Amino acid sequence: MSSPRQATAFAPATVANVAVGFDILGFAIGGFGDTVTVRRIDEPTVRIASVTGLPEPLPLEAAKNTAGVVLIGLRERLGLEYGFEIEIRKGIPLGSGMGGSAASAVGALAAANALLDQPLPRTDLFSLSLLGETLAGGAPHGDNVGPCLFGGLLLARRMDPPDLVQLPVPRQLRAVLVHPDICVSTREARAILRQDVSMRGFIDQSANLAAFTAACFTGDYDLLGRSLEDLVIEPQRARLIPGFAEAKAAALAAGALGFSISGAGPSVFALTRGDEMANRVRNAISAVFAGHSLRCEEWAGSISLKGALVVECN
Amino acid sequence: MSSPRQATAFAPATVANVAVGFDILGFAIGGFGDTVTVRRIDEPTVRIASVTGLPEPLPLEAAKNTAGVVLIGLRERLGLEYGFEIEIRKGIPLGSGMGGSAASAVGALAAANALLDQPLPRTDLFSLSLLGETLAGGAPHGDNVGPCLFGGLLLARRMDPPDLVQLPVPRQLRAVLVHPDICVSTREARAILRQDVSMRGFIDQSANLAAFTAACFTGDYDLLGRSLEDLVIEPQRARLIPGFAEAKAAALAAGALGFSISGAGPSVFALTRGDEMANRVRNAISAVFAGHSLRCEEWAGSISLKGALVVECN
Repeated sequence: MSSPRQATAFAPATVANVAVGFDILGFAIGGFGDTVTVRRIDEPTVRIASVTGLPEPLPLEAAKNTAGVVLIGLRERLGLEYGFEIEIRKGIPLGSGMGGSAASAVGALAAANALLDQPLPRTDLFSLSLLGETLAGGAPHGDNVGPCLFGGLLLARRMDPPDLVQLPVPRQLRAVLVHPDICVSTREARAILRQDVSMRGFIDQSANLAAFTAACFTGDYDLLGRSLEDLVIEPQRARLIPGFAEAKAAALAAGALGFSISGAGPSVFALTRGDEMANRVRNAISAVFAGHSLRCEEWAGSISLKGALVVECN
Repeated sequence: MSSPRQATAFAPATVANVAVGFDILGFAIGGFGDTVTVRRIDEPTVRIASVTGLPEPLPLEAAKNTAGVVLIGLRERLGLEYGFEIEIRKGIPLGSGMGGSAASAVGALAAANALLDQPLPRTDLFSLSLLGETLAGGAPHGDNVGPCLFGGLLLARRMDPPDLVQLPVPRQLRAVLVHPDICVSTREARAILRQDVSMRGFIDQSANLAAFTAACFTGDYDLLGRSLEDLVIEPQRARLIPGFAEAKAAALAAGALGFSISGAGPSVFALTRGDEMANRVRNAISAVFAGHSLRCEEWAGSISLKGALVVECN
């Protein structure tokens, strides 16, 4: 039986940092993501045939696209004689803070993996997908690619070797994600961060992360809400997002358990208990951004327990 | 029915910080602690009648002893017309890093509470016991008084208002505590700490704390062991303890899941899976300190799920 020649994978959008887990915590969104088709080609190279779904054109040079970078890495790692051609349909806007570069990389790897004579285990795909994160944002961290690949609410404790911990998602927990139409580059959002954290911030944020983790296990929504507060990163980055403080106040007033920046922004997220509260919170946030003349894309729903999926293979 | 005139409480030793939860995590030790007898007296004052069990004399001035300070606070808070006389039998050596000042304070409060016409709930005792911590070590933190009062493995997320989270103790988890006979003052151990934490240390230590918390819920001893590593505080304080690096290497070689400083030191602790490993680890640590001509007190056993207890009341 010969291997398939073409596969298509869907890789979900993700919310990284999750207020209290800077660079180590993320969750997957069920509603939208990137769709990547990969074809085996005889030429020993990786090329990008097309990137669609974006208003602006994207470079087709493989070494400058996370999907290309990770398949170059895959070829080198396995010493493959054949190459890959990639088609990317972006569902996640660029520079939105919703894990778009991670999704393209993970989608490409998931699709290419289905074309290998001996597919790799997912933890190997995780390590390869970090190559794309290095391109996108400097030091590799797994808080987008981890949940994008495995789904759920994921703690990426260490990258090398990968040490990933799935946290249970309380049954009524819902997420709200709002993307105001401005662009924040990950590099810029990193560049403004201080290199050190105050001892007070370190202690209080650690306590929040531990309490949030415990609350996920016990389903204690009150504790989860008290803990979901970023004391270290958000105060430094909030000014990059017009209306942030106002949107946060509105979300909390509408009953959100917590509200913060998704990844490096400008998207913001909230967690809520139940769908009704999620809808109220979504409307409250959008209304604030509308008042700042910002158009928004919005999403509300459950954290997706599914990671990247091969949706077609032939 | 008139209230009792005299009560005696036992308050256990505690291990604070627990490698990954600086100022916020601690657990109670079953084997030893301070025993405090409190008598109601007609004079509107707090006095210390005796402190026994220590080689050196301790000041009997109530305002300079944590047990005195917290009962002064209790009187003021409740506007009591009567006073208290305190007898302290120290089971925990001074400046040992095993929560001795917390135990005297918590023991005094637990005993005095039994003498009140309307006893306070334990969370109120927690807030009062922090008054003693302020005397002993500067900024109040609950990683000793919390587990001393409530028992178990406790996350003290916030002090005001108290937000305390019990973490489950995996069934086979055992603790080893070794006290080498040198004195490290809490103030000194705090003074040498840098005021800031590097971003790398913040991220990696946060990840360890979250993974440790998850491992307590899932009973994953391997993850618990991988996570139980202090990357921030221990490297700065280890030099205060002769033979620390060697003792740590010996503990880990003997199978310990992790090893670090108990509180501000000089006591060290290890966590193990099962009693046999606990005994091996205890012997390995003691042998190293003996090689440095340090006498040791040692203890190995389960984390105590009991906090301070009134043992006599009449």
